[in-house]
Amino acid sequence: MESNQQQLFLGIDGGGSKCKAVILNASMQVLGQGISGAANPFHNLARAQASVSHAADLALADANLDANLKSELIAGVGLAGVNLPKYFELMNQWQHPFKSMHLATDLHIACIGAHSGDDGAIMITGTGSCGYVSVKEQTLIVGGHGFPHGDICSGAWFGFKAVEKVLLSYDGIIGNTALTEKIFSALDCDDSNTLIETIAGNGATFYAKLAIHIFDAADAGDQIAQDIIKEGCAYFESVFNTLMAKQPNKISLIGGLKPRLMQWLKPEVAAQISVPTNPPEIGAVLFAMQQQA
Amino acid sequence: MESNQQQLFLGIDGGGSKCKAVILNASMQVLGQGISGAANPFHNLARAQASVSHAADLALADANLDANLKSELIAGVGLAGVNLPKYFELMNQWQHPFKSMHLATDLHIACIGAHSGDDGAIMITGTGSCGYVSVKEQTLIVGGHGFPHGDICSGAWFGFKAVEKVLLSYDGIIGNTALTEKIFSALDCDDSNTLIETIAGNGATFYAKLAIHIFDAADAGDQIAQDIIKEGCAYFESVFNTLMAKQPNKISLIGGLKPRLMQWLKPEVAAQISVPTNPPEIGAVLFAMQQQA
Repeated sequence: MESNQQQLFLGIDGGGSKCKAVILNASMQVLGQGISGAANPFHNLARAQASVSHAADLALADANLDANLKSELIAGVGLAGVNLPKYFELMNQWQHPFKSMHLATDLHIACIGAHSGDDGAIMITGTGSCGYVSVKEQTLIVGGHGFPHGDICSGAWFGFKAVEKVLLSYDGIIGNTALTEKIFSALDCDDSNTLIETIAGNGATFYAKLAIHIFDAADAGDQIAQDIIKEGCAYFESVFNTLMAKQPNKISLIGGLKPRLMQWLKPEVAAQISVPTNPPEIGAVLFAMQQQA
Repeated sequence: MESNQQQLFLGIDGGGSKCKAVILNASMQVLGQGISGAANPFHNLARAQASVSHAADLALADANLDANLKSELIAGVGLAGVNLPKYFELMNQWQHPFKSMHLATDLHIACIGAHSGDDGAIMITGTGSCGYVSVKEQTLIVGGHGFPHGDICSGAWFGFKAVEKVLLSYDGIIGNTALTEKIFSALDCDDSNTLIETIAGNGATFYAKLAIHIFDAADAGDQIAQDIIKEGCAYFESVFNTLMAKQPNKISLIGGLKPRLMQWLKPEVAAQISVPTNPPEIGAVLFAMQQQA
């Protein structure tokens, strides 16, 4: 690790919708934070680079530090999309504005953050979903292939399933569900035609906002909503078992759906899930420090 | 009906990828045909109008008729997307180049074509899927809400399910399937990363091309492929029952998947399915003649 106690570190956690930056000193004190836009190189390489750079500017300003210090930062950068080797390579070739840049997947920095730099496993269920385990420098990604073909048990998946079931119910193919009124109300629709016009062309972020209605309907006893959650949990538990087979010390659950999902998991699964110790952007700094060491 | 035996009719069957035109005389003889591009007003109104107009030009040329005769044509125009009232209205306001235009859904003209102008029901399983019944001027659409949230048991849906299962199998969440080799080979991929890069951003037409691999794998005994087909058929049979409850004289199955799907339907369902007597574009002319009458 750098012996220079003046050294500043930048931690980046970038995904499909936003990019979080944090500035830390060598004692791991948070000096400033910033949030910019989308930073998934698989979606848009130039935009990802611009978002990482801009988030660093915002964090420096938040820390009341000179903007020129950007070129002195040791950056740990965790990004969605760089699990694809081609996009890891493209992003790594960036003529970045930092002193050095250590690139990893958003999964890896989240895992390091969750377990304070130790080996471990994480499961993410936010807008997307993914499982990841890192044990003795061996890593495995399970799922996380994106919406709509992957990311089962994610917010986007739950919202999509809700719309799918509402349309089936509207056509009389399945029975009535409380989801119909909730989804129609949330999207200001009054029949299947306006629903179809409203959802046209939307992606994961749009659908993820509808996920809450599945959990509300399920809590109120709606069988169709409960069945969707059970299907998601069955997938989640398969991912859990695949990760645990690698014998991580700990497994943590991260993401916006966690509070609603925990009660639906089998008690023996839920009981094994640890609370993450640090957020992913701090994990990015820990990663950079490991790489510098 | 027009008493003028010189009157020419244009029949249009337009969808998300192409627009078919046919020129008929008053004795229902086919004089010429033409195919142009996408013609779904919900996707692109101006393009749909241009495609309808261009297909008519091509059909007139194919019939060795003067291009100026376009303004003399009585047009029956069946289009995807105009089941949505907003897009029916927008398309119907078109300052079209014909003598008159009678607009209907692609479903309605397909149904009229399939039963030579009589009442009846149709089920479509091509790139998309949909059920439709027209009895005593009462009509009902079942399904057909589009890909990926609807159109269960369509080519796009089967192709999408194939990719979904290949990714689950690759992650070890489900067992091995012959679909993996077939889909990897069809898309020239060798792992899940290249598969994800290849499928990114693709829509219904892309996935529909993969449907054949589900049926090939199922025929060779692959359990996962067979289960997907059974899931599709269960939906199809629900749609069938909903349509038959309206007591149509006949029900026909239309679309590219028909030859592969028929053997997977329950024998009592398959036995009730009639052969369509005319293609949708001829149905469009029959519709125009009905409206003129």
